[in-house]
Amino acid sequence: MLLEDALAQLLGSASSVMDTETVPTFEGDGRVLAHDVVSALDVPGHDNSSMDGYAVCVADLLAASGGALPVSQRIPAGHLGTALQPGTVARIFTGAPMPAGADAVVMQEEAEVLGETDGHPLVRFKALPAVGQWIRRQGEDVRRGAVVLPQGTRLGPAELGLVASIGHARLTVTRRVRVALFSTGDELVMPGDLPPERMKPGAIYNSNRFFLRALLQRLGCEVSDLGTVPDQRDATVAALRSAAETHDLILTSGGVSVGEEDHIKPAVQQLGGLDLWQIGMKPGKPFAHGWVDRAGAPGKCHFVGLPGNPVSSFVTFLLLVRPFLLRLQGVRGLEGLPCPQRQVAHFDLPKGDKRREFLRVRRNAKGGVELFPNQSSGVLTSVAWGDGLVDNPPGCAIAYGDQVNYLSFDSLLS
Amino acid sequence: MLLEDALAQLLGSASSVMDTETVPTFEGDGRVLAHDVVSALDVPGHDNSSMDGYAVCVADLLAASGGALPVSQRIPAGHLGTALQPGTVARIFTGAPMPAGADAVVMQEEAEVLGETDGHPLVRFKALPAVGQWIRRQGEDVRRGAVVLPQGTRLGPAELGLVASIGHARLTVTRRVRVALFSTGDELVMPGDLPPERMKPGAIYNSNRFFLRALLQRLGCEVSDLGTVPDQRDATVAALRSAAETHDLILTSGGVSVGEEDHIKPAVQQLGGLDLWQIGMKPGKPFAHGWVDRAGAPGKCHFVGLPGNPVSSFVTFLLLVRPFLLRLQGVRGLEGLPCPQRQVAHFDLPKGDKRREFLRVRRNAKGGVELFPNQSSGVLTSVAWGDGLVDNPPGCAIAYGDQVNYLSFDSLLS
Repeated sequence: MLLEDALAQLLGSASSVMDTETVPTFEGDGRVLAHDVVSALDVPGHDNSSMDGYAVCVADLLAASGGALPVSQRIPAGHLGTALQPGTVARIFTGAPMPAGADAVVMQEEAEVLGETDGHPLVRFKALPAVGQWIRRQGEDVRRGAVVLPQGTRLGPAELGLVASIGHARLTVTRRVRVALFSTGDELVMPGDLPPERMKPGAIYNSNRFFLRALLQRLGCEVSDLGTVPDQRDATVAALRSAAETHDLILTSGGVSVGEEDHIKPAVQQLGGLDLWQIGMKPGKPFAHGWVDRAGAPGKCHFVGLPGNPVSSFVTFLLLVRPFLLRLQGVRGLEGLPCPQRQVAHFDLPKGDKRREFLRVRRNAKGGVELFPNQSSGVLTSVAWGDGLVDNPPGCAIAYGDQVNYLSFDSLLS
Repeated sequence: MLLEDALAQLLGSASSVMDTETVPTFEGDGRVLAHDVVSALDVPGHDNSSMDGYAVCVADLLAASGGALPVSQRIPAGHLGTALQPGTVARIFTGAPMPAGADAVVMQEEAEVLGETDGHPLVRFKALPAVGQWIRRQGEDVRRGAVVLPQGTRLGPAELGLVASIGHARLTVTRRVRVALFSTGDELVMPGDLPPERMKPGAIYNSNRFFLRALLQRLGCEVSDLGTVPDQRDATVAALRSAAETHDLILTSGGVSVGEEDHIKPAVQQLGGLDLWQIGMKPGKPFAHGWVDRAGAPGKCHFVGLPGNPVSSFVTFLLLVRPFLLRLQGVRGLEGLPCPQRQVAHFDLPKGDKRREFLRVRRNAKGGVELFPNQSSGVLTSVAWGDGLVDNPPGCAIAYGDQVNYLSFDSLLS
């Protein structure tokens, strides 16, 4: 199965969370707008100065003998001046409303105070301004009635600043997606439960649980970490059934390959349905997608089973589960993989894998990307070392200097 | 002043937080390591299978009549098998330790069960494996004693997974940086305090406070939002003095231009020292950097004054304050601006600004970047619309199709 098809199928199945809640704008980072945000005002509300300087009438300046005019008023930001007296200028500060009759601003750096006449400073300007100079026009940034941010926008710092600038102290967003996280695998030991010297052969520390929880939290999910799936079939069925009632997604890692040692698959099949996908990618081939029916609540709970290998689990989360979770939250425009950047390979890959491969690489100071020497999917060293993935087509060798398609972790983790 | 020089001076002045604390690995996302993390074990701990299949001795397979051999044991992950009986193979699962005497693994997809002999399944293999096939070697991923992550590493999901994989349930990190956030400006109204229709001319909603708080929180800072700087000089001095005692940085926006309306500058000068930088960049020219001495605590509190225009404030935060805050937390290797990507301009800029300009742009589906039409620094529309900045040299025109230097917000916000 192609990765693109897997993504399309996942996104197509995602039933967005419909519940909304109202949160203070201060707490909106990472949330998703449930409605369009419409401006109830023009920004700026009035023509105003974009510099500290002098508000002038250009025609008066042209007419002034010696180019000097008296200052008849002073308008700080937040204060409303009076109409400009003919033949005078107004001292004005950044953001202050333009007085009626003024049609340009001269920066204070281009003005010279010559002295006083009748208690008013007399100012001469080094150059004649164009009409409209240094004026920010009413509604130039945001027009009253305009949709400032559409429904489905994921809010970041800039978006919060923008909605604050039009006076919104609260926002209506979709509620957080609730994810139940299970680990599977007899060999898994929790860090802290056993010191390294007491680990039995074949035992490994559970690492997936740590990065999956962090990844889910970065996406704004409410995570219930339900620990390890029980060893018995009945207990597994009971655990899944219970989790399905109160969560939007049950996420597991491990237990979805074609091996015999998995007892989560039959439990999901019994409670709902399950597709096992062999996705044509490395790392990350086995991937399970399905659902668990609910007895006590409407709808069904999504199920995703990630591969157990840490690197496979990490990469399939970024490429498939992340857009799926964003879609559940109501984010729009997630079709397709993120747009890759072109980078130059500063490495050789003499023989490409027969599957499409996501190589862990890092940008270097010379403007290229370097390859982590060990591309095994066993531990996360390559992911922690790297800053992104090269998306390499099946069977494609790479020579030093070739152009490659690069996806940064920054873009995949945000 | 060049932006690069401003950054170097800021970083050079940053006195890293020396206090450390121990946190559960589960809560380590975004924190910075105070010590090297060293592995107390090999990962994997033993040679093990990287596939579900059969552990075999290649020489036995060569010698077998008809290529078929009986299965003499079954080794699930987390279980230790016994030495491989000569002339037999072992059923083995991903992650399970290799039995002594076996030197390769054959994937189950390449095996065929023919029947049973003496209660043991008889298996034939479609191809002869190479010695070492599908075996992950002890210590292949992490060697015992190796520095897995150095001091100064900023932890993300992959790093948390990696330290968990070597058994660390807790981590020693630098304490969070404490930032006191002040707003300045008579014209600022808090959203919610006044509806749009009751705003006075010249009054604007405070937006900087919203995005600055979110940006600081994303960087792992403890933020004290202390509201608006008092209108009187004495009260301002008292507020700054008090904030300096318990914070690492006092951050303000507005009040640092050369205009007359600012009362925070003299207060900082009185309590410590202040440099006013005119940085050769647009947006973002005025920038203040200094310190406030402490009476009751050792050291001094950093002071940074951002420009008041929202876009200027946002951009200078990303390019200057972000690396400064990371350095305060002990992150290494922040010299210089982030490495830009080359992108193709899908816009024309007939006349470059005389200052180096950071244009708000967005990548499009055709592989280029488009320019937000209104590059005014008044509101954040351009930043919310865009997904990055084009770093354009002074006076440089841009024609459709030109290569430009692009910095993604993903990389600047993470």
